[in-house]
Amino acid sequence: MTKELMIGLAIAGGLLALLYVILRALWIKKQPAGMERMQKIASYIAEGAKAFLRAEYRILVWFVLVVAILLAFTAGKESHWLIAVSFIVGALASALAGYIGMTVATMANVRTTEAARYSLNRALRVAFVGGSVMGLAVVGLGLLGIGILLLIYTTYFGADTPEEIQKIMNIIAGFSFGASSIALFARVGGGIYTKGADVGADLVGKVEAGIPEDHPLNPATIADNVGDNVGDVAGMGADLFESYVGSIISAMVLGAALALKQSDFSLGLALVFLPLILAALGIVASLIGTFFVNVKEDGDPQWALNKGELVAGIIYLAGSYFLIKYLVNGTVTTEGVFGYVQDSFTALDIWIATVIGLIVGIAIGFVTEYYTGAGKKPVWEIVKQSITGVATNIIAGLGLGMKSTAIPILILGIGILLAYYFAGLYGIALAAVGMLANTGIQLAVDAYGPIADNAGGIAEMSELPPEVRARTDKLDAVGNTTAAIGKGFAIGSAALTALAFFAAYMTAVGLAYIDIANPKVVVGLFIGGMLAFLFSSLAIDAVGKAAMAMVKEVRRQFNEIPELKAALKVISKHIDEPVEKWPEEDRKVFEQAEGKAEYGKCVEIATTSALKKMMIPGLLAVITPIIVGFAGGPEMLGGLLAGVLTTGVLLAIFQANSGAAWDNAKKMVEQGVEIDGVRYGKGSELHKATVVGDTVGDPLKDTSGPSLNILIKLMSVIALILAGIIAGG
Amino acid sequence: MTKELMIGLAIAGGLLALLYVILRALWIKKQPAGMERMQKIASYIAEGAKAFLRAEYRILVWFVLVVAILLAFTAGKESHWLIAVSFIVGALASALAGYIGMTVATMANVRTTEAARYSLNRALRVAFVGGSVMGLAVVGLGLLGIGILLLIYTTYFGADTPEEIQKIMNIIAGFSFGASSIALFARVGGGIYTKGADVGADLVGKVEAGIPEDHPLNPATIADNVGDNVGDVAGMGADLFESYVGSIISAMVLGAALALKQSDFSLGLALVFLPLILAALGIVASLIGTFFVNVKEDGDPQWALNKGELVAGIIYLAGSYFLIKYLVNGTVTTEGVFGYVQDSFTALDIWIATVIGLIVGIAIGFVTEYYTGAGKKPVWEIVKQSITGVATNIIAGLGLGMKSTAIPILILGIGILLAYYFAGLYGIALAAVGMLANTGIQLAVDAYGPIADNAGGIAEMSELPPEVRARTDKLDAVGNTTAAIGKGFAIGSAALTALAFFAAYMTAVGLAYIDIANPKVVVGLFIGGMLAFLFSSLAIDAVGKAAMAMVKEVRRQFNEIPELKAALKVISKHIDEPVEKWPEEDRKVFEQAEGKAEYGKCVEIATTSALKKMMIPGLLAVITPIIVGFAGGPEMLGGLLAGVLTTGVLLAIFQANSGAAWDNAKKMVEQGVEIDGVRYGKGSELHKATVVGDTVGDPLKDTSGPSLNILIKLMSVIALILAGIIAGG
Repeated sequence: MTKELMIGLAIAGGLLALLYVILRALWIKKQPAGMERMQKIASYIAEGAKAFLRAEYRILVWFVLVVAILLAFTAGKESHWLIAVSFIVGALASALAGYIGMTVATMANVRTTEAARYSLNRALRVAFVGGSVMGLAVVGLGLLGIGILLLIYTTYFGADTPEEIQKIMNIIAGFSFGASSIALFARVGGGIYTKGADVGADLVGKVEAGIPEDHPLNPATIADNVGDNVGDVAGMGADLFESYVGSIISAMVLGAALALKQSDFSLGLALVFLPLILAALGIVASLIGTFFVNVKEDGDPQWALNKGELVAGIIYLAGSYFLIKYLVNGTVTTEGVFGYVQDSFTALDIWIATVIGLIVGIAIGFVTEYYTGAGKKPVWEIVKQSITGVATNIIAGLGLGMKSTAIPILILGIGILLAYYFAGLYGIALAAVGMLANTGIQLAVDAYGPIADNAGGIAEMSELPPEVRARTDKLDAVGNTTAAIGKGFAIGSAALTALAFFAAYMTAVGLAYIDIANPKVVVGLFIGGMLAFLFSSLAIDAVGKAAMAMVKEVRRQFNEIPELKAALKVISKHIDEPVEKWPEEDRKVFEQAEGKAEYGKCVEIATTSALKKMMIPGLLAVITPIIVGFAGGPEMLGGLLAGVLTTGVLLAIFQANSGAAWDNAKKMVEQGVEIDGVRYGKGSELHKATVVGDTVGDPLKDTSGPSLNILIKLMSVIALILAGIIAGG
Repeated sequence: MTKELMIGLAIAGGLLALLYVILRALWIKKQPAGMERMQKIASYIAEGAKAFLRAEYRILVWFVLVVAILLAFTAGKESHWLIAVSFIVGALASALAGYIGMTVATMANVRTTEAARYSLNRALRVAFVGGSVMGLAVVGLGLLGIGILLLIYTTYFGADTPEEIQKIMNIIAGFSFGASSIALFARVGGGIYTKGADVGADLVGKVEAGIPEDHPLNPATIADNVGDNVGDVAGMGADLFESYVGSIISAMVLGAALALKQSDFSLGLALVFLPLILAALGIVASLIGTFFVNVKEDGDPQWALNKGELVAGIIYLAGSYFLIKYLVNGTVTTEGVFGYVQDSFTALDIWIATVIGLIVGIAIGFVTEYYTGAGKKPVWEIVKQSITGVATNIIAGLGLGMKSTAIPILILGIGILLAYYFAGLYGIALAAVGMLANTGIQLAVDAYGPIADNAGGIAEMSELPPEVRARTDKLDAVGNTTAAIGKGFAIGSAALTALAFFAAYMTAVGLAYIDIANPKVVVGLFIGGMLAFLFSSLAIDAVGKAAMAMVKEVRRQFNEIPELKAALKVISKHIDEPVEKWPEEDRKVFEQAEGKAEYGKCVEIATTSALKKMMIPGLLAVITPIIVGFAGGPEMLGGLLAGVLTTGVLLAIFQANSGAAWDNAKKMVEQGVEIDGVRYGKGSELHKATVVGDTVGDPLKDTSGPSLNILIKLMSVIALILAGIIAGG
């Protein structure tokens, strides 16, 4: 294939995905949005979410501009300004992916609620399509962005020699930098927002005032639901966009290093563009997969989702085998290239490496589900240890999270060694591509959770009959395994992509090796590991402070708004009793309070604290590699990358799993458990203990944990971009 | 100096310390031990503690024998059996140091209580002397053990060439291995014991039954106090013994590598034996320092302690300058030696490196105190965030612990780079020696805490007048800064010693470098970091389970022993009211319960769970480097060491500081705090929230945290010993 054709295929893949996005978004818009009250609540949520994203982007514009200017004047040895262009395009594409995903999600949520009034399956359909729009927007924009930049750069530079190709790849790395930095801010900012609002709303609503979650009288309710959208939707979109383009670009950069040494230029070109073509294949596979997600009226929705994923997976697996065979038609020599144990490898070796990536991701996912799944032994242990109170609940959860790092790390380690054995560093990068190629459909299923969650919140706030909420709750529960596998892919691909960028950094900085016993490198390792801890602490702290601010505001409203105050008193008399059965005068008090809660103030507080608190961790991630690179030299920077990679991955797994296990321990108790012959349920002391654990886990699993996956890639791509100047200095 | 003289000086230093130990132990024995009741309680504690140590040692004998046999048949290229001998001697010396320290502590505790009946100062004196016996037993046995082994080996091998010296040093490394493995088991086992009993006693006594800490009716009280002795005393003794000999031996091994390249053999010899001589100097300095710890009847006990430490410090600083100058009379060449940036260094450079070590340790200590000290801003933040309940208390504490890693790691990093700049790897090792040379007096002050704590427990259980308990509480509070600096030394020296052993491993395994970008090494890094997490989780889990077992046993006794059941009911009527003021019939019920609590059963449960649960983490630490070394090769093992070093140090700081901060947050509330105009104290909701945090922190700060410091050294010394076979294989 010519490079023009390959780039053309990538662009076509991206456009195809975006076409789907437009058609499906229009379909969602056409769905009925329910009664006026529901629409009003939904519009509060949508407006709050959009206002936050706009405010966030207004800040990030400055960040992007400053970094772009710095890049234009310093990075790389030449063509600085093109790196800056790539960076800006990457940042824009990431922001756009998040925005589209969120806009569609905030349309889909209320329509899911409306659909849930009629049937579970109809609701499932709306929620899934909403998720798939986001999934395909992410992969479409990613592939289109890289493709168009490549088209421009190859035209501009010619790209007829391996050296030119390599130069272009180093410029393209800027796209990944842009995507990663926006993703980091979006994840951290969104995470602080969602968990600050969630923890704050729970603490003052559920715990203090004793009113149910999402109750319309709780002024923090809207902020809580906005949070789901800016954190779990926009944040996750930016996150996966980052992972997706990171895996593709790091593999292309390593492909370019190989291309330099191939006697056959077209073979070299194939190695460079293969990740892009595989991504395009993944889009086609995902698209086809979405059409298999259909359920009969009484079918099993879980199976429908699995079917979609399975079809996409099989198409990808088979298609990639033939594509790789077709493109890489020759033996790849690795002589003289940094980081290979084998003298050469073939198309089959590459394909095996991508399959290894898939297996590693799925295996980590299953282990994650074992450690964090409701009903499984580890979570059951937490429940049992919570009998003696909160302290043992927390101790058990911390222990579980730490322990749960062991098997995933071993799986990851074996995967790295095997991929390396088959196709060297390129194989490691391709393993990450293998995990993420089907991001389109994977993300569609992932985006369920927040849409269904929001749909439930709207049902509650609109005081729809309980069966509607029951349906949305069921929706929310579907797709746990897929979500777990998604986590496995996120962690696995983050480690592999960061490792690939790290290797690219080594090549670019021109070091033959970085000696781990060199004290400078050890100091780098220490600082890198410390950064992961510091970064986590900043994220966790921010959530704590945002929650405190929210609690204070809600307390103020409860005290100062007389209608709310009166209604709260009434509610506490009728816990778990439907409003219709209340005595006339109590119902009147309750109705008078309607609309008195000042949601907007809470939304404002959440927005302000999230934006204020996301800056320091974000800047820390960007500035540290620069400082260490210039002050400590390329070897210490290498140590820093390895340190943040290893400690970051471990901390991410620990925090994600502790948090998820606490969450499910609480859910298990809510559904009723029996220990030593005694039954416990909602409202029991056991339940109270598990609620605390769940709250502690929130910032760990939804703010700092997932941000760490981005952090490690962001720092390694910055190092790669800086490599030219550091090596020269 | 001839080597005979230098070895003789070391032995003399060791003997001098042991002479002090004997004389002071006899002095303590002569002190009055109080009323029969106090003596009875004290004897329960002493017997429980001794029974535990004996049971522990009975298990460890098998471990030591098996490892010794394996060593004799496999380790090193030749003279395997001597490594085994060193290993056995190291293990024995460590066990002995722990046993002596604990025996004296269990004598000193009740005598401190008795002294506290008369005056604060008298009690201080007894507690300090008790601590100093332990401190000097540790350093005395350490130096004597190394000295005698050296005497035998140098006689056996001749030791007239640098090659012979190096061979001997590799054999001596077995001593450090023995000390480290016993220390690890002692720390983990003792830590599980003390925190299992403590958490269990608190949960069922303070929280459930509402009776005060150390109340004689709580069956777990004796186990709790035994725990202080086996964990905080015997465990700490073995721990510091390990640190002390580890720093000396790692520096000697690196000195031997330098000796190979010196044209002047006597200069080479001086480099090898210098750490030993500095340690002897430290013993003399510590001994002199102890004589300065005397207070007038109304003097400030804190100042007395500081005076002792200060005098010892100045003597050591000045003495080491002249000693180094005298011994290292020439320029040390580093050409052709692994791990040096400078071509040569001088005596002054070495001295500066040791001073850097001291400064780093003290600085880390002060930062630790800032982050964890009662009344300081960070702990105050935890208190304030606890207003919204347990969840925010836990979140704040986790955040604080993570954040508190940043500055210590930067200080450590700068220290490593500076020591390396002045005297290369040898300088790094000497920096650790600098921190630990004065372990004698440092440990004397550290051992205060548990002795005073026990003295308070005995006062409470013996129902002595409240002013006695008040005095022992004051004693317990004294020496916080010293304890913080002790922690700084523990963390700093662990990192430096492990780094020195790591460098020695590199030399021994014959690798010119270990490339951090090699995927094998990255996998090693991942597994090493994961081990630190897994190890922590096992320790934390074990505490949780031991506490649960304790809770169940105490509940059983409260239910099945009618006198206890009746007394508990009575007590709950008279909270915070002295027994004398109770009505006649209630007092009778209370008196009838006396002696009914079955302390022995609780002691047995704690002993069994601790011994059972210490095995897996201990074996994990020993077996993993062996497996990784043989299956993954020397490079992956190098990655493993670097991974466990960096992640281990970070996790250790995080856990120690989170735990200490939660502890002090609770103490602050107990002393009364004012937030937003409201006062909170004991029994308030705020207090309850901070009690939970304190309980969560217990296993982190006293079991898994300190064990990690041992883990990283143990694994690196094992790698060093294995290096010969791995390199050959």
